[in-house]
Amino acid sequence: MTQIEEAKSGEITREMADVALHENIAAEMVRDCIARGEIVIMKSHKCKSLGIGKGLLTKVNVNIGTSSVAINPDAEVRKAIIAVEHGADTVSDLSMGGDIDEIRRSIFHSISVPLTTVPIYQTAAENGPFNEIDQDDLIRNIKKQVQQGVSSVVIHAGFTWDTLISLKKASRTMGMVSKGGSFTAAWMIANKNENPFLERYDEILEILLKRDVVLSLGNAMRSGCVHDVSDKPQLSEIYKNAELARRANDMGVQTIVEGMGGHVSAKEIFTYVKYHKKVSGNRPLFVSGPLPTDIAVGYDHMAACVGASIASGAGADYLCAITPSEHLALPDIEHVREGAIAFRIAAHIGDSMKYGLSDLDLNLARMRRQHNWGGQFKFALDGGKARQIHSTGDTCTMCGDFCALKIMEQYLGS
Amino acid sequence: MTQIEEAKSGEITREMADVALHENIAAEMVRDCIARGEIVIMKSHKCKSLGIGKGLLTKVNVNIGTSSVAINPDAEVRKAIIAVEHGADTVSDLSMGGDIDEIRRSIFHSISVPLTTVPIYQTAAENGPFNEIDQDDLIRNIKKQVQQGVSSVVIHAGFTWDTLISLKKASRTMGMVSKGGSFTAAWMIANKNENPFLERYDEILEILLKRDVVLSLGNAMRSGCVHDVSDKPQLSEIYKNAELARRANDMGVQTIVEGMGGHVSAKEIFTYVKYHKKVSGNRPLFVSGPLPTDIAVGYDHMAACVGASIASGAGADYLCAITPSEHLALPDIEHVREGAIAFRIAAHIGDSMKYGLSDLDLNLARMRRQHNWGGQFKFALDGGKARQIHSTGDTCTMCGDFCALKIMEQYLGS
Repeated sequence: MTQIEEAKSGEITREMADVALHENIAAEMVRDCIARGEIVIMKSHKCKSLGIGKGLLTKVNVNIGTSSVAINPDAEVRKAIIAVEHGADTVSDLSMGGDIDEIRRSIFHSISVPLTTVPIYQTAAENGPFNEIDQDDLIRNIKKQVQQGVSSVVIHAGFTWDTLISLKKASRTMGMVSKGGSFTAAWMIANKNENPFLERYDEILEILLKRDVVLSLGNAMRSGCVHDVSDKPQLSEIYKNAELARRANDMGVQTIVEGMGGHVSAKEIFTYVKYHKKVSGNRPLFVSGPLPTDIAVGYDHMAACVGASIASGAGADYLCAITPSEHLALPDIEHVREGAIAFRIAAHIGDSMKYGLSDLDLNLARMRRQHNWGGQFKFALDGGKARQIHSTGDTCTMCGDFCALKIMEQYLGS
Repeated sequence: MTQIEEAKSGEITREMADVALHENIAAEMVRDCIARGEIVIMKSHKCKSLGIGKGLLTKVNVNIGTSSVAINPDAEVRKAIIAVEHGADTVSDLSMGGDIDEIRRSIFHSISVPLTTVPIYQTAAENGPFNEIDQDDLIRNIKKQVQQGVSSVVIHAGFTWDTLISLKKASRTMGMVSKGGSFTAAWMIANKNENPFLERYDEILEILLKRDVVLSLGNAMRSGCVHDVSDKPQLSEIYKNAELARRANDMGVQTIVEGMGGHVSAKEIFTYVKYHKKVSGNRPLFVSGPLPTDIAVGYDHMAACVGASIASGAGADYLCAITPSEHLALPDIEHVREGAIAFRIAAHIGDSMKYGLSDLDLNLARMRRQHNWGGQFKFALDGGKARQIHSTGDTCTMCGDFCALKIMEQYLGS
């Protein structure tokens, strides 16, 4: 039985108990939320249980993987390790170049957190061009990746031929910017066929059901610039994915809905996220970014940290990290680290809006008040980086002999 | 006559016209806002006019300067130049080590944007310990720095002996974290005297009036950790500074109010800023950070980018940049650059909330849509950095042969 089936029958599984313990909430609440589809549990091959959804801390995913023109399998493994060391709760392998099966295997065995894939990536890379890809190729890749032990797979089933027609008519500057979405659409057009994931939806659910792999319903219609506002294709996908999530849950498949990512005006993020959560029946919402501006090129992780903080504060449960290389290049290891940290910060700020302030902040502040540098590095998100910048004695070079805290201790005695 | 005196008499000065032109609003509106104290114009020695306040784009200040234990005058000049190159609208020289007059002179002559100082810093460094500092030393330093041509000076006049007593009673984890505030308080306690800036307030206004130097009313009582919430000392300073700003405006001195900086829970920033603007009679609000978390040590520029985006979106007019070195060390040149950019991003996001989306974003998106890399670098906040990350041909290594935009052009024709 899957987690959702167990939950519906009233059982609290070991995984639910693990999540409850880790998140410090009641196991019954985890169970009830899973039964309603409001929480999913991703199990990694190393038996770690990760809860995502209502009442739980905001989680962070980091994308890695080769592209068709940048293939360095060892670097991708190192990126996966660095991402996890810097707080990634999950890793997605989006490889499209080199020996994709072998790269995925290496990454899989080098991390203990859940691994996600987008099976159409491998299909497009290995079985293309699109007019030569068979629906069975798509299904075969999903099956293969599930059997290899991935914790979650992404499919772009939330749009139809009609959505593509409305997209063509929509007055967007950027059109469609989702890679998986564009592959799916290209396949549909090249083969004059309806969305293959939609046509084979029940079969896909059966595959996921066998190993309780979490389904992630992709966000193909997201906007690619802040001026491209919420439009018919986007809304249509939101409603379609909500319907598909219900169907999946009914069959016993745990499901995440992707959305409200991409480029979204800062003013709209809060309302959009609330709306999407509501339409999706409060299912776990996975958001990539969002970027509240287009001009922060080279610093998109910073701009996205703003968008993601607001999004998670509004109720997004799961954030996909953006690196400084976004829109420019495959990120190197350092950029993966920066992206992971930026989103750890966003998740933490979002959680402070959702649940109130954390003791982590108070612990750090107390150490700072006591001029305890070791204690500050211990409670910092990335103590190594902090230590490296500090590097000297018991005062910081910014204030030197004129530390406000020490002066007030001396003069005010507090 | 100062700008505020001219404005009150109905005149539109060259400076007002410059600001109106630069900001693309009516000169009459600039004039009326200056008359009401809602806008200030800082004039730099190189005759540039910078408007800060109502209806204007959010401005960014970058702090530089030596400390008592990190003295490299050439580096500080380079930091000033880098900050301006990366979008700092103003620079504050907070030097406390070395030949402070000479360092200020070098910085002053190397930049064309307005320079701000905090005169008590030099006084504490050169005339201390605090019990040996005379009120006249403080006044002399203000006079000297004004005569040297600074555009704005900061004084911490917003608290009294009573405020210090309530601070001692307040249940704060971090006490007072403002350096200038702690110097002022230490002087008061060491000399058993009321706040010197308050006692000599009219005299200070006369000094500023002569050269139309902008007064910045410092924020000594800000909270030093997110768990230290708005309390009696903080509210008392907000009201005191509002009263002092009115007095300064009445005398013809343009005035900025500092506040709502430091460490503030993300949930509260919007409301706090709105409240502070209201209490201050909508005077230009200068905010340092704020930091919505304490644990982003080494990445405080990113966390502060979130806080500053929300703060400027709520109405803050002028942001003081935070660097990755905050709480750890005097920032190096690279960290000054990162801090400046993070706050340029925050100001831009805040402006999108205040005024709606900018054409800058649309211009960049159009270039991206056209695969025009040169155009993207042109409209990016930091084109050099973007170019450096991209570095190759006409596609990015992230998507390689599988660019969503190109695939959709090929298959969907849009």
